[in-house]
Amino acid sequence: MRILALESTARAASAALWEDGRCVGLYLQNCGLTHSQTLLPMVENLLKGCSLRVTDADLIAVARGPGSFTGVRIGVAAAKGLSWGADRPCCGVSTLEAMAMQALCLEGRLLCCCMDARRGQVYNALFRVSGGRPERLSEDRALSLAELLPELPEAPVLLGDGAELTARAMEEAALPYTLAPEPLRIQSAWGVALAAAKAPRESWGEPEPVYLRLSQAERERLERLEREKENNA
Amino acid sequence: MRILALESTARAASAALWEDGRCVGLYLQNCGLTHSQTLLPMVENLLKGCSLRVTDADLIAVARGPGSFTGVRIGVAAAKGLSWGADRPCCGVSTLEAMAMQALCLEGRLLCCCMDARRGQVYNALFRVSGGRPERLSEDRALSLAELLPELPEAPVLLGDGAELTARAMEEAALPYTLAPEPLRIQSAWGVALAAAKAPRESWGEPEPVYLRLSQAERERLERLEREKENNA
Repeated sequence: MRILALESTARAASAALWEDGRCVGLYLQNCGLTHSQTLLPMVENLLKGCSLRVTDADLIAVARGPGSFTGVRIGVAAAKGLSWGADRPCCGVSTLEAMAMQALCLEGRLLCCCMDARRGQVYNALFRVSGGRPERLSEDRALSLAELLPELPEAPVLLGDGAELTARAMEEAALPYTLAPEPLRIQSAWGVALAAAKAPRESWGEPEPVYLRLSQAERERLERLEREKENNA
Repeated sequence: MRILALESTARAASAALWEDGRCVGLYLQNCGLTHSQTLLPMVENLLKGCSLRVTDADLIAVARGPGSFTGVRIGVAAAKGLSWGADRPCCGVSTLEAMAMQALCLEGRLLCCCMDARRGQVYNALFRVSGGRPERLSEDRALSLAELLPELPEAPVLLGDGAELTARAMEEAALPYTLAPEPLRIQSAWGVALAAAKAPRESWGEPEPVYLRLSQAERERLERLEREKENNA
């Protein structure tokens, strides 16, 4: 089986080609350009470089979130477009689980996957590597660092674009941690491919973006409605 | 500092952009096309995708071997060309050390970096990860698996394109090992960038290919001369 995987939920964007467990191609950019400019050209170039077309993939995989609202939308929309255009199935996977899949060499360790969710929060999930597999210890969630830190009794391995943010908070609280080295640390399409490869076929289908929180526009609308209700009362 | 790194010593080829410790770009292909076709287009595309030019790099780094004779020559020649053309310094690093640099998250572990050297041999070096640094336990060398196995008293982490070959031999000898997961396992330009970043400036200069063994042509010539000497005696 050949999987074409996309990841664009944070600052870095990447595309990967997985073929029966092997990494045939990986293209990652983390230079700050917008994903709408970089993601599809990366896919095109990666396929071309391997003399392949989108129809040579058996599955299109994408990180469905959590993550930056715009990034998640670009990734999911691009994956759906490729899937429909090439008539290939599509599979959405958790950004945080994809991150953990990259670090399965760290047997026995507690993996703390973190993304900077702004507004004092991180998107987070905890896993333990057990027998080369990620054992999930929490759901994907948005929480504050003050809420997260008490859940980390032993030195965790910090992964994701929120790893440094979390590291600073742990340092201030005099808690031990290991910062995963790049490029293991940043989320990449290779992890997405690994997560999709072990996803059951029943989970294939149109991926739905997962935001975990309301968008800024939705939040502000609710706040306005609340204020209007109070003023009218 | 910004480092543009190349790696083409085995089946996979890759280019990476390192910027003050961060992975700004990584492009890896392992689909079996020849490096003369893939390496420079990958460099060009990676730079273009980050809105950069070769002259924006402060250092050109390359894996100088050991490895496939053709692969090493392509990598070193491409790096020298880029270095001369852009008037930027060049730095050659050991392929095996670059491999170890990718696995520094495996604190305390014995790293066994292996490349398939054909003719019953592997190119190998041993490292131990100590305080997040690779402590070198052996020189880069070409040796048989029968010679290597007694040097691995504890379960090593097997890295490189010769990892599976070594794993099979260890399995037959009932010795424990851990196979590093891809893409950590395959040598990549990210490791080359990491090794170059810590190389002293005195080591910069025109990289010389390191083959560790005679090429097939040189070996056959020596054998022919030997036979002729015997015939003439």
